[in-house]
Amino acid sequence: MEHLSIDTIKTWERFYRANFINCLSGFKSANLIGTVNKDGQPNLAVFSSVVHLGSDPALIGFINRPLAAAPHTINNIETTGVYTINHINPSFVEKAHQTSAKYPVDVNEFEAVELTEQYIDNFIAPFVAESNLKYALKLVEIVPIKHNNTFLVIGEITDIIVAKEWITTDGFINIDKAESMACLGLDTYYTATPIAKFGYAKATK
Amino acid sequence: MEHLSIDTIKTWERFYRANFINCLSGFKSANLIGTVNKDGQPNLAVFSSVVHLGSDPALIGFINRPLAAAPHTINNIETTGVYTINHINPSFVEKAHQTSAKYPVDVNEFEAVELTEQYIDNFIAPFVAESNLKYALKLVEIVPIKHNNTFLVIGEITDIIVAKEWITTDGFINIDKAESMACLGLDTYYTATPIAKFGYAKATK
Repeated sequence: MEHLSIDTIKTWERFYRANFINCLSGFKSANLIGTVNKDGQPNLAVFSSVVHLGSDPALIGFINRPLAAAPHTINNIETTGVYTINHINPSFVEKAHQTSAKYPVDVNEFEAVELTEQYIDNFIAPFVAESNLKYALKLVEIVPIKHNNTFLVIGEITDIIVAKEWITTDGFINIDKAESMACLGLDTYYTATPIAKFGYAKATK
Repeated sequence: MEHLSIDTIKTWERFYRANFINCLSGFKSANLIGTVNKDGQPNLAVFSSVVHLGSDPALIGFINRPLAAAPHTINNIETTGVYTINHINPSFVEKAHQTSAKYPVDVNEFEAVELTEQYIDNFIAPFVAESNLKYALKLVEIVPIKHNNTFLVIGEITDIIVAKEWITTDGFINIDKAESMACLGLDTYYTATPIAKFGYAKATK
């Protein structure tokens, strides 16, 4: 095992260092976030920083990079107040990753990467038709993180699209059976295999 | 596919609903956070909400539950300003999960679950000796999330312990080879298998 100090790592080449640091937080959830601007122009972008905040209310957070690097998704959410989060599956993971390219604001990434917009009831933000597990959110708060100009975007879940066969008797969703993927770093995608389910831990073990 | 509204889900039994909502954010990183209180008493607890915030500075966030439910880790971090994050491996995943039990504040979870404290240089927070990939952080900011009384704890990485054999030529870390695990919901742990690495996406594809 090697002991690396941050002072050493700061001397590394920029992309090498970014790859390395990006892996330290471990496996991440692989998602596409669907939004629409005030004129109805759809946007779709890959996000790996989705984090559970709480079950009641059902709050989900994600980290949006600085506005200069990634303005479209956060601007659309701020404007319309709604968005979708769609789990990425192996059948469309290459198209999903391609949404991370810097397309001009007037490009519809659904068309650019050939994924299918899906609209459910009167919800104005697009779902990804190809995704096996997806949900709609309404914006609760955008929390600026001043240390690096990123944002924690907090939303409340309003609707969920899922096949009942993946929900087990205790409410757990077998998302590996739904073919949801994990990702790591900037560009690597994984499937996951369950190893153990332990139940609620008690101190009197 | 089933369309479930949050109004339907709110009528579900509390634990069934919590399991269900907890799975929607997708695969998570499985970690143990090591801290120490002002008297040198160690604490170790499992956290699945670790999120990458940025590479330069190297910032990592995690979500701490409300103080009434989970006071020890956040209190220790606030007091000492330092902590460790240790990836969980299959060889000790059952012990790692057991740290989620509500032990009294004066119990050292390392002793309770039989994991090994490791101290490196003069860093006062304990690492998990059994973990193949781990890093030290200093506290940057604790951001309260007012909607559900949770906290985003932001730290800057200061030191990393990793085997060089897992670092690839572009800086990426093969954490699956380091046996890092993913988790889902409240109690289920996974190994991950790489499916695809795509590189930097360009809009001119």
